[in-house]
Amino acid sequence: MKKITTENRIPWNENFKYCIGTGRLALALRKEYLDGLKKAVDDIGFKYIRGHGIFHDEIGIYREYEWNGEEKVMYNFTYIDQIFDSFLEIGIKPFIELGFMPEQLASGTKTVFWWKGNVTPPKNYKKWNNLISATINHLIDRYGIEEVKTWPIEVWNEPNLSNFWENADMEEYFKLYKETVTTIKSINEDLIVGGPSICGGSDHWLDDFLTFCKKENLKLDFLSRHAYTSGPAQLIPFSCYQEIHSKENLLKDFKTGREAIEKVNFKNIPVHITEFNTSYKPLNPVHDTAFNAAYLGKILSYGGDFVDSFSYWTFSDVFEEEDIPKSLFHGGFGLLAYNLIKKPTYYLYQFFSKLKGDILYRDDNLIVTEKNGKLYIIAFNPVEDVHDITLYQTLELPICKSEDTVFVKRSVINEEYGNAWQAWRKMGRPRFPNKEQIEDIKEAAIPKFETYNLPVKEGSITLEFVLQKNEITLFEITGIHKPKSYESPYYGLDDSRIVGYNNL
Amino acid sequence: MKKITTENRIPWNENFKYCIGTGRLALALRKEYLDGLKKAVDDIGFKYIRGHGIFHDEIGIYREYEWNGEEKVMYNFTYIDQIFDSFLEIGIKPFIELGFMPEQLASGTKTVFWWKGNVTPPKNYKKWNNLISATINHLIDRYGIEEVKTWPIEVWNEPNLSNFWENADMEEYFKLYKETVTTIKSINEDLIVGGPSICGGSDHWLDDFLTFCKKENLKLDFLSRHAYTSGPAQLIPFSCYQEIHSKENLLKDFKTGREAIEKVNFKNIPVHITEFNTSYKPLNPVHDTAFNAAYLGKILSYGGDFVDSFSYWTFSDVFEEEDIPKSLFHGGFGLLAYNLIKKPTYYLYQFFSKLKGDILYRDDNLIVTEKNGKLYIIAFNPVEDVHDITLYQTLELPICKSEDTVFVKRSVINEEYGNAWQAWRKMGRPRFPNKEQIEDIKEAAIPKFETYNLPVKEGSITLEFVLQKNEITLFEITGIHKPKSYESPYYGLDDSRIVGYNNL
Amino acid sequence: MKKITTENRIPWNENFKYCIGTGRLALALRKEYLDGLKKAVDDIGFKYIRGHGIFHDEIGIYREYEWNGEEKVMYNFTYIDQIFDSFLEIGIKPFIELGFMPEQLASGTKTVFWWKGNVTPPKNYKKWNNLISATINHLIDRYGIEEVKTWPIEVWNEPNLSNFWENADMEEYFKLYKETVTTIKSINEDLIVGGPSICGGSDHWLDDFLTFCKKENLKLDFLSRHAYTSGPAQLIPFSCYQEIHSKENLLKDFKTGREAIEKVNFKNIPVHITEFNTSYKPLNPVHDTAFNAAYLGKILSYGGDFVDSFSYWTFSDVFEEEDIPKSLFHGGFGLLAYNLIKKPTYYLYQFFSKLKGDILYRDDNLIVTEKNGKLYIIAFNPVEDVHDITLYQTLELPICKSEDTVFVKRSVINEEYGNAWQAWRKMGRPRFPNKEQIEDIKEAAIPKFETYNLPVKEGSITLEFVLQKNEITLFEITGIHKPKSYESPYYGLDDSRIVGYNNL
Amino acid sequence: MKKITTENRIPWNENFKYCIGTGRLALALRKEYLDGLKKAVDDIGFKYIRGHGIFHDEIGIYREYEWNGEEKVMYNFTYIDQIFDSFLEIGIKPFIELGFMPEQLASGTKTVFWWKGNVTPPKNYKKWNNLISATINHLIDRYGIEEVKTWPIEVWNEPNLSNFWENADMEEYFKLYKETVTTIKSINEDLIVGGPSICGGSDHWLDDFLTFCKKENLKLDFLSRHAYTSGPAQLIPFSCYQEIHSKENLLKDFKTGREAIEKVNFKNIPVHITEFNTSYKPLNPVHDTAFNAAYLGKILSYGGDFVDSFSYWTFSDVFEEEDIPKSLFHGGFGLLAYNLIKKPTYYLYQFFSKLKGDILYRDDNLIVTEKNGKLYIIAFNPVEDVHDITLYQTLELPICKSEDTVFVKRSVINEEYGNAWQAWRKMGRPRFPNKEQIEDIKEAAIPKFETYNLPVKEGSITLEFVLQKNEITLFEITGIHKPKSYESPYYGLDDSRIVGYNNL
Repeated sequence: MKKITTENRIPWNENFKYCIGTGRLALALRKEYLDGLKKAVDDIGFKYIRGHGIFHDEIGIYREYEWNGEEKVMYNFTYIDQIFDSFLEIGIKPFIELGFMPEQLASGTKTVFWWKGNVTPPKNYKKWNNLISATINHLIDRYGIEEVKTWPIEVWNEPNLSNFWENADMEEYFKLYKETVTTIKSINEDLIVGGPSICGGSDHWLDDFLTFCKKENLKLDFLSRHAYTSGPAQLIPFSCYQEIHSKENLLKDFKTGREAIEKVNFKNIPVHITEFNTSYKPLNPVHDTAFNAAYLGKILSYGGDFVDSFSYWTFSDVFEEEDIPKSLFHGGFGLLAYNLIKKPTYYLYQFFSKLKGDILYRDDNLIVTEKNGKLYIIAFNPVEDVHDITLYQTLELPICKSEDTVFVKRSVINEEYGNAWQAWRKMGRPRFPNKEQIEDIKEAAIPKFETYNLPVKEGSITLEFVLQKNEITLFEITGIHKPKSYESPYYGLDDSRIVGYNNL
Repeated sequence: MKKITTENRIPWNENFKYCIGTGRLALALRKEYLDGLKKAVDDIGFKYIRGHGIFHDEIGIYREYEWNGEEKVMYNFTYIDQIFDSFLEIGIKPFIELGFMPEQLASGTKTVFWWKGNVTPPKNYKKWNNLISATINHLIDRYGIEEVKTWPIEVWNEPNLSNFWENADMEEYFKLYKETVTTIKSINEDLIVGGPSICGGSDHWLDDFLTFCKKENLKLDFLSRHAYTSGPAQLIPFSCYQEIHSKENLLKDFKTGREAIEKVNFKNIPVHITEFNTSYKPLNPVHDTAFNAAYLGKILSYGGDFVDSFSYWTFSDVFEEEDIPKSLFHGGFGLLAYNLIKKPTYYLYQFFSKLKGDILYRDDNLIVTEKNGKLYIIAFNPVEDVHDITLYQTLELPICKSEDTVFVKRSVINEEYGNAWQAWRKMGRPRFPNKEQIEDIKEAAIPKFETYNLPVKEGSITLEFVLQKNEITLFEITGIHKPKSYESPYYGLDDSRIVGYNNL
Repeated sequence: MKKITTENRIPWNENFKYCIGTGRLALALRKEYLDGLKKAVDDIGFKYIRGHGIFHDEIGIYREYEWNGEEKVMYNFTYIDQIFDSFLEIGIKPFIELGFMPEQLASGTKTVFWWKGNVTPPKNYKKWNNLISATINHLIDRYGIEEVKTWPIEVWNEPNLSNFWENADMEEYFKLYKETVTTIKSINEDLIVGGPSICGGSDHWLDDFLTFCKKENLKLDFLSRHAYTSGPAQLIPFSCYQEIHSKENLLKDFKTGREAIEKVNFKNIPVHITEFNTSYKPLNPVHDTAFNAAYLGKILSYGGDFVDSFSYWTFSDVFEEEDIPKSLFHGGFGLLAYNLIKKPTYYLYQFFSKLKGDILYRDDNLIVTEKNGKLYIIAFNPVEDVHDITLYQTLELPICKSEDTVFVKRSVINEEYGNAWQAWRKMGRPRFPNKEQIEDIKEAAIPKFETYNLPVKEGSITLEFVLQKNEITLFEITGIHKPKSYESPYYGLDDSRIVGYNNL
Repeated sequence: MKKITTENRIPWNENFKYCIGTGRLALALRKEYLDGLKKAVDDIGFKYIRGHGIFHDEIGIYREYEWNGEEKVMYNFTYIDQIFDSFLEIGIKPFIELGFMPEQLASGTKTVFWWKGNVTPPKNYKKWNNLISATINHLIDRYGIEEVKTWPIEVWNEPNLSNFWENADMEEYFKLYKETVTTIKSINEDLIVGGPSICGGSDHWLDDFLTFCKKENLKLDFLSRHAYTSGPAQLIPFSCYQEIHSKENLLKDFKTGREAIEKVNFKNIPVHITEFNTSYKPLNPVHDTAFNAAYLGKILSYGGDFVDSFSYWTFSDVFEEEDIPKSLFHGGFGLLAYNLIKKPTYYLYQFFSKLKGDILYRDDNLIVTEKNGKLYIIAFNPVEDVHDITLYQTLELPICKSEDTVFVKRSVINEEYGNAWQAWRKMGRPRFPNKEQIEDIKEAAIPKFETYNLPVKEGSITLEFVLQKNEITLFEITGIHKPKSYESPYYGLDDSRIVGYNNL
């Protein structure tokens, strides 16, 4: 039995829901995308959204053309306005990532992803700066400087990988950063600019980048990187499998930002993990599982200790980096599958968004918080290696002494309950399920809810429970309603007099 | 083990959802009422709705006044138009009950209910007939004769009780019927008129009424009565308790209509149970329980054999016959509690609305239907007298021989799951729950859903299950999806290669 | 020509939309009511809503009963919770009026209105105080003290009329006030309490009430009264006609509050006109007319100079003080007719809600405001006595010197346009219009919109316009969009090359 | 004065709204698209929708890949299911166009449009036929054969233009048709297949195609072609200008289908104009104008005489054939501009969708229909060449003799009213208008509505009216409501007693 007290309280921060990832921004024109985003924002409360492709030709901000023999540029904000309007209407703000390169502005032809993001430096930095200036000025005109000042602006994505930045050329990236930050700050000093948005594998970029900014006296308002925890992909057609590394490994990556800041003695700036997940592959079925959710329980619980945000990549299976999804479940990154079906990891986030007040206790399988006498407990049991393991827990929890009894509400996700993927597998994996099947899957995706009472003894209760394999459980525990002096009771009430309830 | 075959098929009729009861029509101006009705019609598919009070002064169709020394009548359809417009927009039609008496047209002052329905005969039958004529003509003008011809019109409510018809005066009721039916048929012969809408206790009214109509050569398009199964009320303030009689007792009342028709050798006309429930009291907590639902399982299963409709009284706790509800749960008739909370009996109706095709098997705890190879099973276990009884069932069910495996979806309601009232009790019975409590109750009211596979052996499966106390379970069983020749498979797919799923 | 300058700016206050009147609170359970309120709050931005009947038995907060020989009281907040929940969800707060008397708590049987509000003092002030205490404590439990502290609480309604307070007994009213304010302040000192909510005709009550509060050292957080401007009703069945007094007369009543405060040297407290309108009769067709709107133009323009709020009585024709409405248009108080049809006075409010910034100019037919270089002009032309009078206006208006041209948008309501009542009259006054007729009326109720350009000369424009009979016109005038340096122009654009537009 | 009688009635057919065009199907994933389509279907009642790109790689039905050294094909219906689900939910059915070519199935690399539709024949007809078979079989599985049998299937688009079919190779197209129709009919004989979907300029294709089908004994269920009426484009950056040919010219193209059928003595099959408009360029500002609407009045009026459908190209400015729209108004084909702004031609369609019953009269500027005594008149005044021409009309119209007075409702669109484009021009052509500007434009886009009465003399009324330049006017004329014997009048009612209305 773990005895939990109120003595060592730590405020629970909500960094876990500061930001959420998305497929390329052009997808935000779609109805399924916007419906899903609204649901996620309403249910979980994400504050920022970050994705690639603001300058992709599909959004089409940048167009060169000729007129009367002169070369001209037409900046076009038709779609980005629609997209950002939608975000704000839904109640979420853009965390802008500047990239990839418009084809006409690119110095090369190398692209990344099915949707062909150009990953080469600008052919001309003056034109790049004009593009940045036209875009930022337009956003300020449309949304107001006070609003835009709250939107972080990240320069490029994963420049330390040659897939995402030609030759992973550090010097060129530093130049891009310098040009970009200088252009933006010349519009308004208070606009928030950061980088270098690296992926793992060459973490020295963090030190080098901070050192560069220091030396060049460049503004840097936040430091950003990504973190995934999976091994090489074992490919099959339209899918793949991977090892998943330890949770500690992932948290270690989280810590590198502040470590680098301290190391080079940079001023204290926020650190954002602008992408993270278990697998970095959008076709790995692990994303659809309860294991994925249970595994990430510890990350959501501890991550906010080390970084100012860590942005799950991504909120929705509306995503096309490796071509169009070929089946309802296909291993997509999304918290939501198509048809707004909640995956287990969605519930993990929804459960964490219920936590309030201060942390009373945390361990590898458990977090307990308390606010105004109400207890919130999330327990998780990721089971990686063994066939079937259940976890027995007994907690002694502190309760207000004036209470006699508490009301316990338990919400359960595991391999049996709240698990759309498992229901879909049992159905025979219909790639294109019909309406009736979708309804069945949605119902199967609902958590199991249980309610009961527990007695309070000398200011504490004993909560015993079992976690099934890959279970995530949320307990919400409150004192039961006691009539106040000015409330009217029901005299004579006795439920045991109802037919069938003489044992109540 | 029960072996169920496809040999003795009986078509499943949907008489159980032909009609639903409602509190007095004036309540249909309310938002909570209309939201609930829409939900019930969408979820269950009721076709008609019947309630009291079309002529109540709160709807105000009838107003006498003086002008220049002359006595005049103003007919006013402002509210009844709003109400019937709402019904039709929601997709349900009125089953009209003519009554009670407008105060200015009444011969006496006796009233029924908190809302004071006047239960005395008209002071003047010519004026009554004018009111009927003005009303029916107005409805035809507004909705078209083809529509109004589909609306049954019932003359008065429970005239065999002196509470509802002064002195329970049979002769006077027969006069009312004669005047009314004659007036309506003179507008259009095809309008549907019926009665006598009696309650139990003086069933000879059925014979007498049929005999009267025959003798007087009056049109009668349907015969109607009510059926409740509870004993005398044991009152406490704002609530009560009652015995509940046997289910067979209730079905016996259902049969009296056709028996009477045969007895007096009347032509074959539809029989409608225009009200039924366990308890006839709107403040009996039994209505909120899983027992109520499990008890009614057999009634919904067999009722349609004996009558053309049986209308549950009522769809919603928006109801005021015994004053305004004083607590979220208060023993109201509603399938829905306030805040659109589904009671167990709502789910009973929702489960029955899933049944399709033909009945393969029925008994006191079970109904099995089949359509296009899909099996639908509802099982119920009402437990009245003993503390805790579970029911074990094993069924051998017929399945298409080409199937290897079936997908089973189970939805469960009992004392633990899908039970808003129990959750509310555990919360400490908050009379006026706040938003958070309402959300908790709504989640607790969701059924438990389970999905699994069963093997098919020689064209049959063996389904074993346990019913907990007062459980209602729905099974939906289908063959699993098998790819067709023109469908594309996923080569290399192997879920056991997903981390954590090596035992799949 | 009136030359308008920016020299004498007065801030435009929005007191005109601080509060809006409603029919008795029980009507707030209805869908038509709530849909209309949401529309009005969205379109106009009312902040508070005030109506009668919080203690009426139809809401049923107070019930006496016996149990085991003892007399008990059951307080029931089922409906008032629903109502206030709805208000807050819509975005409007209650301006509470305590009254009328629950039947079981009343000392007499006198009632007012079709819906029978009991207007007699409490039979027992201890029980009254308990009712007040239970109610206010419940509201604080449900909505939080911080919220309830923003809700003004007015004691009773029009006690200076014997229709509304038996014998118009001033001494008894002062007692009621004293008991009530003392009870409320004992719960929390910061709760806002006021009165005496008198109607015109005995304005000395204001002085007497202030003097009483001073003498007795009673808290008084605001002073309230009503103001109507019509003569005696000339009755016909279900309708009436009346003289309408001058606008100045109405504004004179507005001023009496602050005059009284100064006269008795009371501390400076807010003054609320908790009801006002032209006619005080809910069946006077003047409420449906453009004249009503044009007449009130001056009141909305100047009223906020004299009082902290003036609450139009009422937002909707969902209203039953003189029985149920007997026709779509029937002279109801509502800004909105049934079916959410906007009357001309609704548009008056909607136009005034567009005003921003500072007042540059006002007269009997005109108000001009300006904010950030945008001009807002409302002009109105009430025509009472003569058959057809149009009003010619020419204004010279100040515009930013950097502009060459302005964009003018004009919205017009008069006897021809934006006038649902006139369209309905031309249709033959259908009492119960069908869906197609409702659609026609709604389209006819849309204002006429016109847009055009005017040249700017030396920082000013000349705006000429004609107001038709009973017209209300809104002008919104802005400089036209001029491309900024970072915006991309369309080269070669020439609308005169479009077929049919060679004269552009 | 034109005297119009009821003698020569012709039934009004609704061929004008049988089908509507759309940008490539992938756009149907977008929210703006779906919102607009729902609006158009609700307002106008289109029954089918036709657009390009069902086989475009962006929808991605066809994917070749290797597995274990074997070449495989993966058919993927994720997006087309979403799209067709959306269509059916909105209430419109697909008019399928088979094309263009998946990249991996193409024999060449030639593409059309910004979105790069591949226009080359299949590299392998067996694979093409497999694709057709997989697709049609999938649709039948999902939507049911009864539904899919109602969806016309057109083979390719404009094969007579080398832009759309490599080399405009007739022989190759005929082969494509033969392979395709044979494949489809082998699935189900009742599926509807047609072609050749040609554009103007080589109309002999119609004869040749019919002759080919006859000779080869191929099924052909409908004949299809396109019709535009504009001259060569005079290009400027991102826009263009064109001559518009005469309306008669356009109608002449409509007639070619039935002429060809008669000429080659083919059996009588439906003729569909599967695309038409004034200009064939998506960047010609004429599409935004009232002239476009007024010009098309005659086409909508007469077109249904000659063809079974004529599908306006397109319902929405969500369209990208010539890159992303660069401004709110940009000359797009849409009936709706972005933000669901109705263009004048939208209103033309909405007005025509009101026509009911029989045509009493038609000429170049006028159509009059009648149903159940209600008259519907649409008048239009396209003005191409001259600066400002108004058109005076006087009609004598037949009315039921029992009427004394009629109610006239007039809805007006012209250069001043109901004209979003003109309002936007006056605003200074903001390319990316903000919310407030959008609201202003939407209000300016509302027609002017007028209502009045006219006297009936000996069964007729005289309707005089003036059409402004490029005006489209709808009159709806009905007898006014006369109370029936069972309706209650208002005694004493006299509007002239209302203050301000003594002249009524």
